[in-house]
Amino acid sequence: MKENKIPAATILRLSIYYRFLQELLQDNIGVVSSAQLAKHTNVNPAQLRKDLSYFGRFGVRGVGYDVAGLAEQISMILGLEKTWKIALIGVGNIGTALLKHKRFNEHGYNIVAAFDANPDLAGTKTSTDITIQPISELADTIKAQDIDIAIIAVPPESAQQVADEVVKAGIKGILNFAPVRLKVPSDVSIQHVDFTILLDTLSYSLAQNVNTREKHVQKDKPFKNVQGWSRAHSWPVANANFVVSASQ
Amino acid sequence: MKENKIPAATILRLSIYYRFLQELLQDNIGVVSSAQLAKHTNVNPAQLRKDLSYFGRFGVRGVGYDVAGLAEQISMILGLEKTWKIALIGVGNIGTALLKHKRFNEHGYNIVAAFDANPDLAGTKTSTDITIQPISELADTIKAQDIDIAIIAVPPESAQQVADEVVKAGIKGILNFAPVRLKVPSDVSIQHVDFTILLDTLSYSLAQNVNTREKHVQKDKPFKNVQGWSRAHSWPVANANFVVSASQ
Repeated sequence: MKENKIPAATILRLSIYYRFLQELLQDNIGVVSSAQLAKHTNVNPAQLRKDLSYFGRFGVRGVGYDVAGLAEQISMILGLEKTWKIALIGVGNIGTALLKHKRFNEHGYNIVAAFDANPDLAGTKTSTDITIQPISELADTIKAQDIDIAIIAVPPESAQQVADEVVKAGIKGILNFAPVRLKVPSDVSIQHVDFTILLDTLSYSLAQNVNTREKHVQKDKPFKNVQGWSRAHSWPVANANFVVSASQ
Repeated sequence: MKENKIPAATILRLSIYYRFLQELLQDNIGVVSSAQLAKHTNVNPAQLRKDLSYFGRFGVRGVGYDVAGLAEQISMILGLEKTWKIALIGVGNIGTALLKHKRFNEHGYNIVAAFDANPDLAGTKTSTDITIQPISELADTIKAQDIDIAIIAVPPESAQQVADEVVKAGIKGILNFAPVRLKVPSDVSIQHVDFTILLDTLSYSLAQNVNTREKHVQKDKPFKNVQGWSRAHSWPVANANFVVSASQ
């Protein structure tokens, strides 16, 4: 049986399906076929069925999926029905962008505390009315406020130390923006944000267009453009929690 | 034959392999086994071999991969040997963070022009000595400077208009930070950055820990934590191009 090893890509796609289902709910659409769901999330229909099969039987053959029911199931699977308390460490450019976004909270990701090593910042308030604390108060605040997730947005040289501290304070989930390979215990989940992987994907597509004769490559068959992921990934931003504020 | 449909996930993993190979090269390591390469990039060895098989035969059975040769091949496949010229539209928090990072350029992603709708910003210089231009000069600059990629970091309400303009000016690759579903022609590659997908993945892992009895879910088998992707994804930041500067 496969359900003991749920591919991480399946979890990511569940998140994408969920956002589309929420859009359908807003439009009062009660039933969606697997073909429609697959098309709008740009996922192969067989892949979609396989993804959902990890968790049980959701659809009715020939009818489709009950939108509300499927959304609820995915929400429960992903733990989205819970509000997660987040500590933001590093109130720089990225940290400020995350703080500014109102929908972030609305989607259940609630930044309740913010920390910065800069003594000039400590004690000041963010635009969301959070008082920025010194790093020295990190562990105590995490415990006192029962914080679930840490977003690390500090310079690379201090990221591991921050990670060690939040782990010691009981954090089991980390979103890391610092460009370092952080070591955390195996029971801690960590996700790293790396925009350059996406740039490399663009580079690949552009290079294929530029160099259609494929002179660099050993096989004689021409490459095609990247399938699936790019487009699937292009969906979820429509309902995304995250707004980057450019200068106003 | 499979090579006409290269999965996007393979392209992403090639980027990850490449960064590890670069690290090996820096350490003067000439040969790497597929087991080592798979282990250090946290990819299943069978998956690794399959990924590389799309592009030809790189390894020698029982010996391993020539590090320099494999790195060069991947670099050519991904188009990393080229310096890509980037226009940044929106010099807000995210835009500023991208501009600040020196290694960004070193990896071949060169922000050569920056634009902002704020008239107070137009004419001022970024910390990287780029003069910020008004959006009205976008198309002309893209054409004049032969820019390849646009990074869109503007508020959501103006993102589609910016996308239309850059596409009209000939851009074929877009990295989008605005939380909107941008429509672009099929010959334009677009990647959206959405941190909340990663947060949803963390939410899933945390929910599994919190709720080990799985009472919400229909199957009776317990879930395991997400396999592979999270850890694989945790690798590439070590050599990543992107540094988020927190407040100094």
